[in-house]
Amino acid sequence: MASIFGTLFRVSTWGESHGGGVGCVIDGCPPRLPISPEEIQIELDRRRPGQSDIVTPRQEEDRCRILSGVFQGLTLGTPILIAVDNKDARPSAYSEMETMFRPSHADYTYQSKYGIRNWEGGGRSSARETIGRVAAGVVASKVVRTLHPQFEVVAYVRSIHDIESRIDPETVTTAEVESTPVRCPDPIAAQKMIERIKEVRSQGDSIGGTIECIIRGVPPALGEPVFDKLEADLAKAMMSLPATKGFEIGSGFAGSRLTGSEHNDAFVIEEGCVHTTTNRSGGIQGGISNGEHIFFRVAFKPTATIAKPQQTVTIDGEAAELSARGRHDACVLPRAVPMVEAMASLVICDHLLRQLGQNVLPQAP
Amino acid sequence: MASIFGTLFRVSTWGESHGGGVGCVIDGCPPRLPISPEEIQIELDRRRPGQSDIVTPRQEEDRCRILSGVFQGLTLGTPILIAVDNKDARPSAYSEMETMFRPSHADYTYQSKYGIRNWEGGGRSSARETIGRVAAGVVASKVVRTLHPQFEVVAYVRSIHDIESRIDPETVTTAEVESTPVRCPDPIAAQKMIERIKEVRSQGDSIGGTIECIIRGVPPALGEPVFDKLEADLAKAMMSLPATKGFEIGSGFAGSRLTGSEHNDAFVIEEGCVHTTTNRSGGIQGGISNGEHIFFRVAFKPTATIAKPQQTVTIDGEAAELSARGRHDACVLPRAVPMVEAMASLVICDHLLRQLGQNVLPQAP
Amino acid sequence: MASIFGTLFRVSTWGESHGGGVGCVIDGCPPRLPISPEEIQIELDRRRPGQSDIVTPRQEEDRCRILSGVFQGLTLGTPILIAVDNKDARPSAYSEMETMFRPSHADYTYQSKYGIRNWEGGGRSSARETIGRVAAGVVASKVVRTLHPQFEVVAYVRSIHDIESRIDPETVTTAEVESTPVRCPDPIAAQKMIERIKEVRSQGDSIGGTIECIIRGVPPALGEPVFDKLEADLAKAMMSLPATKGFEIGSGFAGSRLTGSEHNDAFVIEEGCVHTTTNRSGGIQGGISNGEHIFFRVAFKPTATIAKPQQTVTIDGEAAELSARGRHDACVLPRAVPMVEAMASLVICDHLLRQLGQNVLPQAP
Amino acid sequence: MASIFGTLFRVSTWGESHGGGVGCVIDGCPPRLPISPEEIQIELDRRRPGQSDIVTPRQEEDRCRILSGVFQGLTLGTPILIAVDNKDARPSAYSEMETMFRPSHADYTYQSKYGIRNWEGGGRSSARETIGRVAAGVVASKVVRTLHPQFEVVAYVRSIHDIESRIDPETVTTAEVESTPVRCPDPIAAQKMIERIKEVRSQGDSIGGTIECIIRGVPPALGEPVFDKLEADLAKAMMSLPATKGFEIGSGFAGSRLTGSEHNDAFVIEEGCVHTTTNRSGGIQGGISNGEHIFFRVAFKPTATIAKPQQTVTIDGEAAELSARGRHDACVLPRAVPMVEAMASLVICDHLLRQLGQNVLPQAP
Repeated sequence: MASIFGTLFRVSTWGESHGGGVGCVIDGCPPRLPISPEEIQIELDRRRPGQSDIVTPRQEEDRCRILSGVFQGLTLGTPILIAVDNKDARPSAYSEMETMFRPSHADYTYQSKYGIRNWEGGGRSSARETIGRVAAGVVASKVVRTLHPQFEVVAYVRSIHDIESRIDPETVTTAEVESTPVRCPDPIAAQKMIERIKEVRSQGDSIGGTIECIIRGVPPALGEPVFDKLEADLAKAMMSLPATKGFEIGSGFAGSRLTGSEHNDAFVIEEGCVHTTTNRSGGIQGGISNGEHIFFRVAFKPTATIAKPQQTVTIDGEAAELSARGRHDACVLPRAVPMVEAMASLVICDHLLRQLGQNVLPQAP
Repeated sequence: MASIFGTLFRVSTWGESHGGGVGCVIDGCPPRLPISPEEIQIELDRRRPGQSDIVTPRQEEDRCRILSGVFQGLTLGTPILIAVDNKDARPSAYSEMETMFRPSHADYTYQSKYGIRNWEGGGRSSARETIGRVAAGVVASKVVRTLHPQFEVVAYVRSIHDIESRIDPETVTTAEVESTPVRCPDPIAAQKMIERIKEVRSQGDSIGGTIECIIRGVPPALGEPVFDKLEADLAKAMMSLPATKGFEIGSGFAGSRLTGSEHNDAFVIEEGCVHTTTNRSGGIQGGISNGEHIFFRVAFKPTATIAKPQQTVTIDGEAAELSARGRHDACVLPRAVPMVEAMASLVICDHLLRQLGQNVLPQAP
Repeated sequence: MASIFGTLFRVSTWGESHGGGVGCVIDGCPPRLPISPEEIQIELDRRRPGQSDIVTPRQEEDRCRILSGVFQGLTLGTPILIAVDNKDARPSAYSEMETMFRPSHADYTYQSKYGIRNWEGGGRSSARETIGRVAAGVVASKVVRTLHPQFEVVAYVRSIHDIESRIDPETVTTAEVESTPVRCPDPIAAQKMIERIKEVRSQGDSIGGTIECIIRGVPPALGEPVFDKLEADLAKAMMSLPATKGFEIGSGFAGSRLTGSEHNDAFVIEEGCVHTTTNRSGGIQGGISNGEHIFFRVAFKPTATIAKPQQTVTIDGEAAELSARGRHDACVLPRAVPMVEAMASLVICDHLLRQLGQNVLPQAP
Repeated sequence: MASIFGTLFRVSTWGESHGGGVGCVIDGCPPRLPISPEEIQIELDRRRPGQSDIVTPRQEEDRCRILSGVFQGLTLGTPILIAVDNKDARPSAYSEMETMFRPSHADYTYQSKYGIRNWEGGGRSSARETIGRVAAGVVASKVVRTLHPQFEVVAYVRSIHDIESRIDPETVTTAEVESTPVRCPDPIAAQKMIERIKEVRSQGDSIGGTIECIIRGVPPALGEPVFDKLEADLAKAMMSLPATKGFEIGSGFAGSRLTGSEHNDAFVIEEGCVHTTTNRSGGIQGGISNGEHIFFRVAFKPTATIAKPQQTVTIDGEAAELSARGRHDACVLPRAVPMVEAMASLVICDHLLRQLGQNVLPQAP
């Protein structure tokens, strides 16, 4: 279902970049969860434009309001509507989009699919759509943490362009991630990345990169073989984010070059619990979490909208040249970190509820 | 929904590797499609064990029967049940699985999730489950081809272990893929791969690799932003296959190292249609097909079940050593090719029906 | 899915009677449909309080805004958010609801299900929730009418308390329904009903009744056996409305007293089309529309909230006596007419899209 | 989704009356439930033809096999396939159905929807399809009883044609229901019903009736407002059964003639629990179970297939006269009793799992 995500914890997002606003409806949230707009705002602020000098200078406060589903600070178990107004909209900056398709953007495909599109600022394909995801992710994360206090999602920029960072995913903290505006917890690489982003931006160009995400404190038994395997739903979640081109979990593509005896994670008992001595599985085996840390990487392509002149065609089928105006990120990675975290939380929360809704019989039958 | 895939063309698979059989139910298939067990059998034969000397020697004929939903050779529009009996089952070969968890297999996670598991031969986590997917994929593919005769899915082994092949995805044919038992259309690489598989098998070990898939003849406009983007559903489909660790589309992870001006696919008009001069997008932009070829790669880890002794634990929490018996593939890649193709067809067929079910109004409103 | 209705044309409603507002999100609406807030407002005005002297005197303008999914007056194919603010909220009028359960209302069951409830004015169980349904119904109806211009839904009050009306469902028009505030197109019965409602209200009591609905211009072939039969989805739609206790289609309960030879609708050819000489089937056979008029009846119980003193218990388990204050309808039927019509339109629209999304192959295979 | 029912406990049925067989797949069943083919067979035997001299004399043993999802007598949590072969098929008895539409049967609508139909014996619209429902209902019922041992569903024939019975729904037992072949626990009425069925059958005609169903031992809090209210899903479940024309819960249509002060169920505390002194609500308030007995009634029309000559048309649009051959029930009610019970169990089980999957947070937040 196009704009609905999840089986029990269901999020639907709504809104175009230009229009009345954007947001989400959460259907199926457990009742009696304390939640406030302020908690949600913290994450929205990590996502919003204008937060630093390496992201788009658009000035959007992105203030969220909760219009339903919360009463006296607690969730009611009924649909939660979270809304953010569109404020700094400048449709005039997009007037050429009305007639021209930006290369590698969604303009042409939206037009061919729907026969119409809101050409003001990307419309539905704008990253503003992810505001609803980030807001819902805060709620999802809090549900999981209430039941599993060790639960924690930490994503960070692992590479930008050809700049690779060195980060220990086992120990990295959100504080380290937030210590630089580029959200790369390796300070030396971070500095290079910031410079590269500014340089590329000054050239009217853009760059991509990779984000790594580690999820700690996930109990064993989450994930639903055969189609809704945990890694399958994580892959879908990440590949549904704008500008993503790849997903790999645990050993990933590099794991395809190992032998079984090199790759397999040996089981041991530690403090009475089953653990693995290595974690090439990335915390998921057979589609089900095994209690180890879950980690995966997501590839993002360079932003499609660039100031450099590009060859394209018009809606009437004429060849044209386009130099995009408007205020765009030269690199989406820093702002994509909270998006990745939010989608990860949505997947884990939904699968936690699903497991609690199926594993209901007493252990010894 | 754990064992149901798709929104309009819905496939549910059923069955364990040991038990009455395996198969699928297809709900929502368009009526009046000619389909026969023989057509389905062709693809099942590409998937079945014992087809060559580099795959598991288990002798399973995997003969399919259609028990419902087809009348006088045509689909009725009602649920189609396709069943394959389990024949060459030797539960005794798996007796140690009753008490021990194979490293990096699904034994431990199934036990922790369900509190029970069919330990005879992998049960539900066995690759036998994919019989239902391959059978359904044949039907899905034929639906799409009826409406878009150019539609074609060609997957092939691109690498095994560290052996890379050189293949032109634009021109590769199924006949070339089928010309070697390893399903790599580069004959020189194929020969090396075959030797490597035999070598690794003789060592009681296993290896992984990558499969590339190209989908031709997909019309523009398929894919449902924002969550059911075409690449998101392809990613989920592939990551739901056993042993997959990564998915990338178009430029993939390598694309994250390019600039926007290098990466963007310029639009041109050719023979009155919009096309792109390059295809780093992999045929999908903004989650919607753009009419170019769709291509993606999937990483498979080495088979978890190996004959070499491995450290593990028992169901009672005791340390143990396991040397797997049974007849296992030292490399799943050759048999995974039809699985990848089937899942690709299921995704395209479902999105085609969804597009036809939403894009119903006359063009000029 | 609790607050999501439909498979392809999916409506989710959100909002409590007291709080930020109420409304709906429509996901999956076909693109390029002309739609305006003004069109939606017409139906919301038929539903709103204070429209006549026989409904609740609450003053709610119920002005709707479209915040997303519509661009330059046309649907985009993306989620449509429709919102109505809550204005005339007087939580003080409900203060006793905080601690007492109204007999036969949803207070106790919401508390036992969610462990919390918005006790201000009924919260989610308030009839204000149906604003989102009525708004979505306008859009659904217009989709169907664009493809089937003869499509028309006419509901009307058939009985109130023991006052039965005489109405010919074949010929009744919306204008006739709207000619009296009670929405019963039999003027003599309507007058009696109005008097009865006023009389009962003056006694601090309430009354129920039945609504009949006729749907014209539905093409044959809508409805999805075996579970999503058209009458099954209509029944669910109607029984999901507040205060409904029964649903019957065509001959209904009375049909259970006939013999097959009395009940069967003979087929004939009229103007080259298959028709039936009678219509005890109510326009649906085997779960699929047959092209005849669809008609059904819905039973509504008397409003639960009454001014007369009633025996009840408090949230702390103490016996108590409750005399409800607040401004309630003594009879919900007049305002329920547009709700019934809206739900009927949602069902027909969803099934129309589903049929167009499955029946895609050429007729002669 | 046409042939899939339920959100967490999902049942899909497959099969036509003539063809390889019929059955169901259950996806999402809790693991570790003891279940055997013998338990399922008990209910299938209550549904099967030939069980007494007032039902169709077709000889179908309807022996069920479990092909997957059960291991050593316990459910695995994976899809459960239950299959029944078609044996006593006589397509020749239906040869005229190939070209003629039976009045008020599904022949014409299936043909108009799918452009094809299995005309041998009703195909998918045959009551044989309900075998899968009855089998799944046994599993669902056992899941609920494991968690709520007081859970019990008792349905019975309340009326046939104009013969009404007198039954106390509070005390009626399955043993009483099973004491007569007509499944009416009022012995005097039962005798009249049996005679009436035989009389009507000898005339080549058929009759309908009503079934009442009482569900005991349902805990409070089941049902998901606003669309998946418990009575809404029960209504859909019942109206998806063949030949149903109406559904009413609690006071039903008669309740529409009462005042609020007559209709409301007063709350009292009994043994520390909230109860109601009357039960016009039928055990559901605001869409959620309140812990009282749930009861409802379902209207069935007379069997459409009758031996008496009827006016109809052929598939080529010619007027024709049809006198059905074949072996049909003159009254479906006795065999419909286990179908009603099965659908009730499916609804309760699914909603129980849904509640357990949402109500997961500790009570005091």
